[in-house]
Amino acid sequence: MTKLFDDPERFSDDMLAGFLDAYAGRVTGVPGGVVRATETPPGKVAVVVGGGSGHYPAFCGVVGPGFADGAVVGNIFTSPSTQEAYEVGRAAANTGGLLFSTGNYAGDVMNFTLAQQRLQAEGIDTRVVFVTDDIASAPADETHRRRGIAGDFVVFKVAGAAAEAGYDLDDVERVARHANDRTRTLGVAFAGCTMPGATEPLFDVAPGTMGVGLGIHGEPGIAEAELPRAADLAQRLVAGVLAEAPADGDRRIGVILNGLGATKYEELFVVWRTAAKLLRDAGWTIVDPEVGELVTSLDMAGCSLTLVFLDEELERLWRAPADTPAYRKGALTQVDGPRRTTADTSAGGVGQGSADEEGRAVAAVVVAALDAMADTVAAAEQELGRIDAVAGDGDHGRGMVRGTRSAVEAARTAAEAGHGPGGVLVAAGDAWAAKAGGTSGVLWGAALAALGRAVGDSRPDATTVAAGVRAGYTALTTLGGAKPGDKTMIDALLPFTETLETAVAAGSPLTDAWATAVDVATTAAADTAQLRPQVGRARPLAEKSIGTPDAGATSMALCLRAVGTVLEGKQQ
Amino acid sequence: MTKLFDDPERFSDDMLAGFLDAYAGRVTGVPGGVVRATETPPGKVAVVVGGGSGHYPAFCGVVGPGFADGAVVGNIFTSPSTQEAYEVGRAAANTGGLLFSTGNYAGDVMNFTLAQQRLQAEGIDTRVVFVTDDIASAPADETHRRRGIAGDFVVFKVAGAAAEAGYDLDDVERVARHANDRTRTLGVAFAGCTMPGATEPLFDVAPGTMGVGLGIHGEPGIAEAELPRAADLAQRLVAGVLAEAPADGDRRIGVILNGLGATKYEELFVVWRTAAKLLRDAGWTIVDPEVGELVTSLDMAGCSLTLVFLDEELERLWRAPADTPAYRKGALTQVDGPRRTTADTSAGGVGQGSADEEGRAVAAVVVAALDAMADTVAAAEQELGRIDAVAGDGDHGRGMVRGTRSAVEAARTAAEAGHGPGGVLVAAGDAWAAKAGGTSGVLWGAALAALGRAVGDSRPDATTVAAGVRAGYTALTTLGGAKPGDKTMIDALLPFTETLETAVAAGSPLTDAWATAVDVATTAAADTAQLRPQVGRARPLAEKSIGTPDAGATSMALCLRAVGTVLEGKQQ
Repeated sequence: MTKLFDDPERFSDDMLAGFLDAYAGRVTGVPGGVVRATETPPGKVAVVVGGGSGHYPAFCGVVGPGFADGAVVGNIFTSPSTQEAYEVGRAAANTGGLLFSTGNYAGDVMNFTLAQQRLQAEGIDTRVVFVTDDIASAPADETHRRRGIAGDFVVFKVAGAAAEAGYDLDDVERVARHANDRTRTLGVAFAGCTMPGATEPLFDVAPGTMGVGLGIHGEPGIAEAELPRAADLAQRLVAGVLAEAPADGDRRIGVILNGLGATKYEELFVVWRTAAKLLRDAGWTIVDPEVGELVTSLDMAGCSLTLVFLDEELERLWRAPADTPAYRKGALTQVDGPRRTTADTSAGGVGQGSADEEGRAVAAVVVAALDAMADTVAAAEQELGRIDAVAGDGDHGRGMVRGTRSAVEAARTAAEAGHGPGGVLVAAGDAWAAKAGGTSGVLWGAALAALGRAVGDSRPDATTVAAGVRAGYTALTTLGGAKPGDKTMIDALLPFTETLETAVAAGSPLTDAWATAVDVATTAAADTAQLRPQVGRARPLAEKSIGTPDAGATSMALCLRAVGTVLEGKQQ
Repeated sequence: MTKLFDDPERFSDDMLAGFLDAYAGRVTGVPGGVVRATETPPGKVAVVVGGGSGHYPAFCGVVGPGFADGAVVGNIFTSPSTQEAYEVGRAAANTGGLLFSTGNYAGDVMNFTLAQQRLQAEGIDTRVVFVTDDIASAPADETHRRRGIAGDFVVFKVAGAAAEAGYDLDDVERVARHANDRTRTLGVAFAGCTMPGATEPLFDVAPGTMGVGLGIHGEPGIAEAELPRAADLAQRLVAGVLAEAPADGDRRIGVILNGLGATKYEELFVVWRTAAKLLRDAGWTIVDPEVGELVTSLDMAGCSLTLVFLDEELERLWRAPADTPAYRKGALTQVDGPRRTTADTSAGGVGQGSADEEGRAVAAVVVAALDAMADTVAAAEQELGRIDAVAGDGDHGRGMVRGTRSAVEAARTAAEAGHGPGGVLVAAGDAWAAKAGGTSGVLWGAALAALGRAVGDSRPDATTVAAGVRAGYTALTTLGGAKPGDKTMIDALLPFTETLETAVAAGSPLTDAWATAVDVATTAAADTAQLRPQVGRARPLAEKSIGTPDAGATSMALCLRAVGTVLEGKQQ
């Protein structure tokens, strides 16, 4: 919801004051709105856009060379008054006449038409084009009743580029109407927006559903539907707008995938992935697509797909440069280099090993131990996710599954290539770090690799294994920087390491020493529930996790136990 | 919350695929992330940025000339792996060495450091700079423990510009460290973001409060506070970052007011209005401020203020051109015109009138009637807002208050200037339309003006008044296009007009006829509760408003009654 305001009644004025300050070099405030800060050549047609505010960067954000000469700025979601449109029109007008363009809403139609009449009476030749791109707002044979939504951006852009290119007023009006005739949008909404100072959204969309064709202020749509996967949504939007594709033309389209405010860039790119494919599969060539927030509706959740069916003239104007506060297009003075040919950066695989028979036998035990770890972690994935979510982002189980699987696969390959325990552990550690990502992945990877380097490729004795575990511990803490008591995996690994060293030094066989150390580690992992994580780790308020054990320490103890089970099996 | 995804586990991959498609001419995908699509001159230092995804346009959105050479793209909020950083580094490296830069998070620090070591071992001179701008994450004497948030953008931009300008690796590293030393950010959060596929936000902020210094993934902050007014928030943010201003320097600053995702542009501009003033009042010169979404956190609500304390070198690099998918800066090839001098566009006031004494007396009655309307509407503002909110945006009461107040003021001025009823009504109508905005304002304005033109400046008889009301009705319906039964103000005005005409034609005195017509209009306004608004008006599902009368018809009946009361008073 909209949270930041001073006086809700002055919201638009305050917003405009901040906007004018931030872009002082580009735009100038006039009564009723903004105009470009720079002069235009004599005789240029002025293009003035507008409507209610709450749609930034529409409409004041697109005032500048190649786009609009001025924008009339109404209150939130409210048409500006006749007087405001008149004032901005007069301030923006050069000697070439004036084109007003707004979305086709009752208030805007009335006020801009009245302002047109007034300017006309004063001798400024003025035309008005109302944008009607929203296919959900009326049937195809009643396009004059349709609303303007993200297609506003197309019509304004084309008209602005035409005026900049020196078109006269008749031609700017003609091409603006033509752009509107060739532009179609279908939108969906997932959640309403909240007006400044209001405590409830302006309208609701039931959770788990979407309003198909719901207008950007909550106007009626054509259907309610279950919230689909991104790919299915793309399919629906593409099918909807292509249903009104003209039969003529070169099958070239400008496209906007527009976010309404709370549906973010990452989501739009996921939808775009499928939408672009479907459009191309249908035989269309996509020209200069825009994926982002161009016509928003405060913090409304939703998106829309706009197509402009291009001909030569529209394509030229769609691609023309523009230089406005919120939208810049065209060549910067800096020159682009030639296209790069992508280098082959694939990392080399593990080479051939040369371990002796005993070494290879131990390598097989290492592979089996990693396999047991992977199985254990997979079984515990949900529980690990649950305890991680108490104070973290809940992805520890997933990361451990990804890491152990990658490690097993690399270990198996290395073992098959003739490596001993050292080579297999290094390969496993590198793979874990490479594939798991995140913090725990790189730490586990570093520990395994250090262990591998310490034990080497021959059969290690118990003392060597204990020293190897200590090397792994040291690598992990050096890299991670955590200290005992910081509520991390080392709160399980340190007592394990110390117990293993002591037991081995006292003459215990490796399997027994390992089992003793596992019990200590398991208790220690459970005891991390009493600890508080240190500030600086990516976690919410530290207190939240008191009472819950650390996910990393828990998975550490589980993995060590899985290894112990394999050791016992081999012993028998 | 994040609503659009296909497979949550593949979200980052799908997002990246869509991004690469949308910006195919600018960026190229490589294992682990993206690099520029164009070659760089031999010997240029490569700047590779990165971190987890979910922060668009950070980080892949800023790959391009003048900014980064590549971006390593991790999973959502998760560090990329060592392998991924290594791969992108290798793909991006030219012959001038490589600078990695990321925010100072444990996973990123480990993975990028390990990748650095690996590249170094392969003969690619590689440095790493971790950004630590977040003043809330550790005290000023422990900046090495601070996190990187929106200040990432500053350090990456400065390093990218330095590399583009031909700095060698030592100097790129030096100036990146220097930029980091001179950059400070303080952020606030109002609501958590939701991971793709999750049903609950990653973290919560209690309603009506904000987390001061809460990290962009929910890391601990320094305080919880009541949600303030925008101006108070600006004050807090400015005071926070200025507390660490260096004593030296020219008192020139680059500034970013960054939105995290669901806090929208309009709100940021409202905050900026005050922040800019406070910074200037404190003696700082603002250089090229950025107000918008540069480092987001999915759909998290919140914002942050970043200052970079400039010296000559940093200012040059901060202002240098850049040309990336999401951020473009610098002169386009199109040349700006000279600065325009703003024309005086203020509308002329009402001229001197020449009504006779009788006409002036009637004008005084008109002023009194409008005054009574304004009082009535002010008393009913909340109730009108309430019934309008059922199916509209709830601002009808506010709009009517603004309109009637403006009308009374203009009417009084016109009456004092010697106008009769006609001139006074025209002035009132014009003012209403000009100041109220929206649909009802322009309709009321047109109706009053038409009434004024019909009655003229002399004392009108009852027949002339009735004809004037009809003229007002005709003007209103011609402009608005609604038909009787469409659930609008004309559903009260039409029966009023017809009843008034009939009663006057039957010889009723005006006051009696008016009173009779008011009763009919009041009943008709109440009866609009049974009607359904027509599609095409800016309203949600039409069914919602059945059972609630139309706000416009209700205020119409109230206003007509207020006028009647004045007429009766004058009669007595």
